[in-house]
Formats: sequence, structure tokens, C-alpha cells
Amino acid sequence: MFESAEIGHSIDKDTYEKAVLELREALLEAQYELKQQARFPVLILINGIEGAGKGETVKLLNEWMDPRLINVESFLRPTDEELARPPQWRFWRKLPPKGRIGIFFGNWYSQMLHARVEGDIKDARLDQAIHDAESFERMLCDEGALIFKFWFHLSKKQLKERLKALEKDPQRSWQLNPLDWKQSQVYDRFVRFGERVLRRTSRDYAPWYVIEGFDERYRSLSVGRIILEGLQAALKRNGPPAPQPHVAPLMSSLDNLGLLGSLDLSLTLSKDDYKQQIASERARLNGLMRDPRMRGHALMALFEGNDAAGKGGAIRRVTDALDPRQYRIVPIAAPTEEERAQPYLWRFWRHVPGRGQFTIFDRSWYGRVLVERVEGFCSEADWLRAYSEINDYEEQLHKYGIVLVKFWMSIDKDTQLERFKEREAVPFKRYKITEEDWRNRDKWDLYVDAVEDMVDRTSSEIAPWTLVEANDKRYARVKVLRTINEALEAAFKQK
Amino acid sequence: MFESAEIGHSIDKDTYEKAVLELREALLEAQYELKQQARFPVLILINGIEGAGKGETVKLLNEWMDPRLINVESFLRPTDEELARPPQWRFWRKLPPKGRIGIFFGNWYSQMLHARVEGDIKDARLDQAIHDAESFERMLCDEGALIFKFWFHLSKKQLKERLKALEKDPQRSWQLNPLDWKQSQVYDRFVRFGERVLRRTSRDYAPWYVIEGFDERYRSLSVGRIILEGLQAALKRNGPPAPQPHVAPLMSSLDNLGLLGSLDLSLTLSKDDYKQQIASERARLNGLMRDPRMRGHALMALFEGNDAAGKGGAIRRVTDALDPRQYRIVPIAAPTEEERAQPYLWRFWRHVPGRGQFTIFDRSWYGRVLVERVEGFCSEADWLRAYSEINDYEEQLHKYGIVLVKFWMSIDKDTQLERFKEREAVPFKRYKITEEDWRNRDKWDLYVDAVEDMVDRTSSEIAPWTLVEANDKRYARVKVLRTINEALEAAFKQK
Repeated sequence: MFESAEIGHSIDKDTYEKAVLELREALLEAQYELKQQARFPVLILINGIEGAGKGETVKLLNEWMDPRLINVESFLRPTDEELARPPQWRFWRKLPPKGRIGIFFGNWYSQMLHARVEGDIKDARLDQAIHDAESFERMLCDEGALIFKFWFHLSKKQLKERLKALEKDPQRSWQLNPLDWKQSQVYDRFVRFGERVLRRTSRDYAPWYVIEGFDERYRSLSVGRIILEGLQAALKRNGPPAPQPHVAPLMSSLDNLGLLGSLDLSLTLSKDDYKQQIASERARLNGLMRDPRMRGHALMALFEGNDAAGKGGAIRRVTDALDPRQYRIVPIAAPTEEERAQPYLWRFWRHVPGRGQFTIFDRSWYGRVLVERVEGFCSEADWLRAYSEINDYEEQLHKYGIVLVKFWMSIDKDTQLERFKEREAVPFKRYKITEEDWRNRDKWDLYVDAVEDMVDRTSSEIAPWTLVEANDKRYARVKVLRTINEALEAAFKQK
Repeated sequence: MFESAEIGHSIDKDTYEKAVLELREALLEAQYELKQQARFPVLILINGIEGAGKGETVKLLNEWMDPRLINVESFLRPTDEELARPPQWRFWRKLPPKGRIGIFFGNWYSQMLHARVEGDIKDARLDQAIHDAESFERMLCDEGALIFKFWFHLSKKQLKERLKALEKDPQRSWQLNPLDWKQSQVYDRFVRFGERVLRRTSRDYAPWYVIEGFDERYRSLSVGRIILEGLQAALKRNGPPAPQPHVAPLMSSLDNLGLLGSLDLSLTLSKDDYKQQIASERARLNGLMRDPRMRGHALMALFEGNDAAGKGGAIRRVTDALDPRQYRIVPIAAPTEEERAQPYLWRFWRHVPGRGQFTIFDRSWYGRVLVERVEGFCSEADWLRAYSEINDYEEQLHKYGIVLVKFWMSIDKDTQLERFKEREAVPFKRYKITEEDWRNRDKWDLYVDAVEDMVDRTSSEIAPWTLVEANDKRYARVKVLRTINEALEAAFKQK
């Protein structure tokens, strides 16, 4: 969930200042249109890591827009009146009316996370709080509200740097309080439970936006842009408040720095190193699959990636290690007639392996948010809700003890071109290249957006994505095998 | 939730046989249209009390329709293959494809209820199972599925009778197994947890239908009619599968026997009895409101009822008992401008009393499913989703320790006419009667339907409805006061 928010996004001053001028004007305009229409309220939830710029961003939003039409509410210590009523009461009383924007600090998410991190409640109680939050937001959206949920993020390293900088600066050291430091210690817990909350409450009608908080300009501009785009889209839908939930737009990176772009595709492995490492990982996998603890688990590995990124080769290196009775490969192509007559995920559920078994998916259920999104094979509403449906699906697998490993095999455009040409030149490889591959190549940038959204929204502790630098096939194959082995070992240790 | 299913519905043989002839033809026709369109699947979940005719009904549905297009699945003992996979897998593999009907016995609800009744899991785990069920059904509906959820009900007395009858009948005694008897013992737990499950999972896109199971003809015809109407409505929506959830129709009683009709409106209280009882209940309320345990609670009482049923008078008898600083009366009329700019429930949340306080609502949030439904002041989708939103709301109140008492003041049409005329005749009462009252009177039957649906869908253990026989004002007033007192005492005992 937080991968894209740890890669060091930043924006230079000139770009920023120019962009802000336009942004402010557009935001103000949208704000007045919102007031004019008075059809729906806007609710902005502010959450995340301490020190990631939550307060600064809200201050800025107030500067950029007309603060008379914004209610900023920080739910810190409840008042006597609030303590005397059900916990939801304090949020209800501060809801922004139609035509206005409400910014909620310290909202329901802060409270449940704080309680969980402190150990005041356990997972089951956290899940109940999550359920209540979902019902509440669903109701608000059914009533027409437009909800933005922001998670301001810092990597652990960034948090430390930030705290140090603040400490040294006499002008700002007053901002440091014990809680900030404590946060640094409880960072791991906070991020872990935060991810659980985000995974379960990111819904198409109220998705989470994770913002890297380290660079002030990047952070501010991102938040402003997301609000602007979402607001404009909602304002355009004329007529009475939509009975459908607002669909907030997903977001492309502002600084052209993306998760895929941040991969070091120059990573290679020499032939000798490869031979040695692949043999050792292969033996390791073989041993793990025969381990008695494997009977309490099952293994699923899925492969997505650019065309010609070497999915097939990598899969073969995995299966080479195994007895054919131990695994099954499921290639995902167009759905059969039988599959089309069922809900989308049905054709993947049917191939869930039994205990002790291993299923490899050559392409997967992520097709919906990749090719189907890019090619328009399904409606926007369909792929938007697919993220949370997929998270639900993978949670069912995880709860049962299935180890799920997800690979995105990544190559750059030049490498792809090279491999395409090679395929066309070598007669026995020619079947591997089609017109469609060339067409997909034209949509490279659209796929980059789709892949990054996918990783941001579906990479989670229980089923993380592994991005594989695949320009060098040897490097990629070893990484794939090693990742599978590590995932299995980690699962065996937990039991 | 189960009120309407304990009043002894029945249908005579002639009526039944005539109705079945038509029903069967229409069902078959709808079934072929479903197959023809092949746009969506139909899922029928069968749950409820043992012995309430679940099996018989399914058998009948198979007789009435084309069984080749129905998959009946009973998820009893999981197979080895199923045990080796996540629990949801067995339901996925049996999902009916588009164009077909799947009938699921022993589905996810049976399993969670069984586990909870047996004590294998606690409430928090039950809530997680409920959450999973909700996500699953939501996804199925987003994918176009039409879901019917039936709960076959028997009152405790009916269950005992039924079991006895079965025991005596040598032809059928083989149907009795130890589990049936055990069920009779665990009846209370089963009904209690069943209600929790129904309350939380009855959503506009997949509502529960509670069917009284005692009379075979009533039961069969009800189920058949509900399926037919829901199916016809869904088939009429042409075009691609709706992105919106299917809206299944609510149901009017078949035998003209309703909850309101089953009230004994001849109940009266003599003047002397009234004087004595009202004084004693008044003193009791006064004492309870001063009880130190009241500080841990708050009290909310809401009054709905026919026009001229005596809401105002009853409220006055309640407040007579109290110091004016102890209570507040909130009359609910048309929403203010400020209230119209907020979600529907906002104007009721704002009046939630603090600890130790008492708020009386003269009309309430149920306006949405009464007057707004009948008069068309809101869309069908709005009032359909209101039931679950109201249940969520009342659950928040309950969780915090607020005691909620809900009254429907019921009079018959003649009594209303009498009172209307009296109001017109007596000068100082004339302000109490308006043109609108006469207009509402014309919609008497529509209101009866709305009230019965309301009680069926929102009367729950945590916030039950009390139907007050109000032809006799004295009887009604005492019943109101006594009900409030009993609810408070019950709450005090629990702490």
C-alpha cells in the first residue's frame, strides 16, 4: 500500500509555483461552484504518520481556498458533551452541510488505529470499528457526500530524518512533542495496522490516497490536484445527487517518478553466479515443498508483467525444481463461456489449490485492473470496485493459510523492442509475437499508470507485490525463486 | 424481526389451489425468460428454524418450476476437497451461472449461526463472519446477481406443536432426529443470534424475508410470490446487468392477516384501575430517573402512530411524572433548511440525549419509511436503504447504553373517524385537525403496509417496537409508561 510513497517524490520550486497558481484558481472556482450547486458536501479525512505534513497541508488548503467555506475539525480530546454520547455523535455534529468542505483531523480512523497500536483493543475489535466506519461512509456516500481519504506517509528513514531536522531547528523544535518520538518507535505497528485499515476500507466510493509526505511541494500539489479532479468530476454530474457513489479518480504521479521508474533495471547476475544461485534456490524450494509443514499451507504464485518480460521463462525455472504432481500451471486467457456466466473472480476461485499444493497463474485476476481497464473491456465502475474485491479475495486465501506470491516482471521499453525484434527474426520464436503485442506497446504509459495503481491498492502485508527487475533474465529468475522460498519460510515460521 | 411471523398466518385450501395454478404458470414463464436473457443468476438462501418447512418449500419450488434449471445445493458435511481449501471455496464452486437459479441450504449463515449457538465462536468472530458475508453478497450483486434470503420462522409454541405432531405421525416420525429436539432447547439462542445476523445483513440489495412456517399453504405461497415478484422486476430492467443492486420488493401479507390487524383493540382500562395504575407507573418512572444507575444510561422514547391515536396525550402522561429539567420533547416536522443540507439521520443524531437524560421524539426517523415512502417524498432506493441505516443508527445508540423505546400507537378506522369529528366539533380542538389528516386517512391501507414492513425490519432485541392498542386512551397511556419503566429496569439489571 505504501510502496509508491517511499520512493522520494519531489518537485522543484519553479514547477511548483507555476502549478500552484493554476491550481489555486481552479480550486477556488470549484469551491464556488460547489457552494452554488449546494448539492453535496465534501469530506476530507486526514490521517497518517506524525510529521508527514498533515497539519501543514490543511493550513495550505485553507490558504488556497476560501476558508469561510471550509470547516476544519480536529477531534482531539472529546468534550464533556461528547463523552456523554455515543462515539459517532461528535462526527455527526461536525458534518459539513451540502455545498461546503469539511476537513476532519483525528477522525474515526485515528481513533481506532491509536487504540490498536496502544494495544487497548485487539484485531477483532479493530475489525468491528472498521465495519462501523464502512457502514458510516457508505451511508454518507448514498446521501451524496464526496469523501477523500488521505494517508500521509513517510518511510521509517524519512521519519527519522524529519524528526532530526525539526529538533535542530530552533524555530520549529517547539513542534516536537513526546508523541512524535514515540511514533518513531511504534512506527512498525502503526504502519502494519494502518495497512489493515486501508486495505479494508478503500472502496470505490471512498478510496484512500496515500501521499508521500517528505517533500512539501510534492505533497501539497498532490493533495490539491486530487481534490480538484475529484471535485470537478462530481460537480459535472448534474441533476440531483447521484444515488451511485461518487467515483473519485485515481492518481498519476505528478513528478513523473513512479514505482516502476524507480526500479534499478541495470541489475544483472553473471552466468556463474546465476548457475550457483539458481541451483541452490531450486534445491531450497524442493525441500520446502516436501516439508511436513507444507501440509498446513498451500502456495499460489501469480505472474504479471510487460510483454516479453520473461514470465514463461521464470515460471519454467520454478517448475524445474518440482515434481509435476506438486504443481499446476493455470494460463489465463479470455474467459470461457462457462466462466463468462459467473462473477469475475469465479474463474480464479475454481483454481485455488488444496492444502500442500502449488498453483501458478500465468496472468491472473489482476487482468481486470490491467488489460480490461486499459482496453476498456469493462466499465470504470467495474475495475474501480475490483481493487477491494481482490483484497477481500486474497484475505480469504490468507486467512486459510495460503501463501500468495505476486510478481510484476518489469522491463524497459528498449529491452522490449529488442526482444520483439529477436522474436520476429528467429523462426521458432515467431509464434510468441503478435500484432497485439505491438498494439499493447503503444499503450505503454497507460499500463504504467495501471500497474502503479494496482500495486498501491493491492500490495499488502498479507499479499505483497514483488516487482522484478527483469531486463536481465538471470537476475529475474533468481529473484523470483528466492521470493517464493522466503515467503514459504516466513509462513512456516509463523505456524 | 419475527413479530409478523408469529401471528398465525394461514390460507384456506380453495384459495391456495387457485393461487398456485396462476403462480406456477407465472414462475415457469419467468424462469424461461431468465434462461433466455441469461443476464444474471438468481440465488435463493434458505435459513431458519428447524421444522419450519425449509425442505418442503424447496421440494415444492422444484415441483413448480423446471428443475433442470435449478441447482439445489445443501452444504452439509464438507468434502475432503472442500476442507482442503478456504471456507468460501465451496460456495463459489456451486454458484449458479447466469440464467439459472441456485438454492443454497446450509449456506454461510447456517454455518456462522451454528457455530455461535454452539458457543464455538463469540460475538466478535460472528461479526467478522457477518462482515465477510456482506462483502461477498455485495460483490455478487455488483456482478448482477439477484439474491433472495428466506428465514423460515416458528414461534416457540409452534415449534413444540410441530415436533409433537411429527412424533405421533408414524409416516413422518422418521423426519425427527435428535437435532430437531435439541433445536427446541436452543431455540432462544438460535433466535437471538439469528436476529443479530438478520439485522446486520438485511440490505436493500439483498433483504431478508421472514416467513411464518407453520401453515404449509401460507408459507409456500409467500415464498413463491416473493420470488416471482422479485424475478419479474429484475427481468424487466432491460439492457446489461444493472450496476445498481437489484431492488427486491417488500411483501404484503397474503392472507390479509397483519401485525396491526392482530392487535386486540378492544382492550380497555376502567377509570379506577387507570388512576391507580398510572399513579404507580408514574412514581416508578420518577424513581428510575433518579436512580444512580441512570447516570450510566440515557433514555430515548419515540412515538409514531395513526393520526388522532393519542400520541400527544401519551407523551404528556410520561412527562407529568418528571421534572422538566430531566427531559426534552423533540417534535419532528418538516426538516429545516439546515437539516436538509445534511444526511437524513443528522437531524436525529443532533438530539441524542447525554447520559442521564431523556429525549422524547414526537414522530421520528421512521418518517422516511412511513410518510416519505407513502407520499413519495423520497425515492424507493432511499427508503429501502433506510431500514439498514436505521438499524445501524440504533445499534450505535444501544452500544453506548442508550435505552430506546419505540411506540406505534394503533387505533382502528372507526375510532379515528370519531375522533376527527369530535375535533371538528369542539372549538378548542379544531386546530388539531387539518385537510392533511383527511388525506392521510384515504391512504390507510398503504400506511398499514408501511408500518408492518417497518416493524418487521427494524424491531430487534436491541430496539424492539411496542405496538400500543390505543382505542382506549387509558389503556394506551398505562401501557406506554409501563413499557418505558420495564425497559429501564431491564437495562439497569444488565449493568
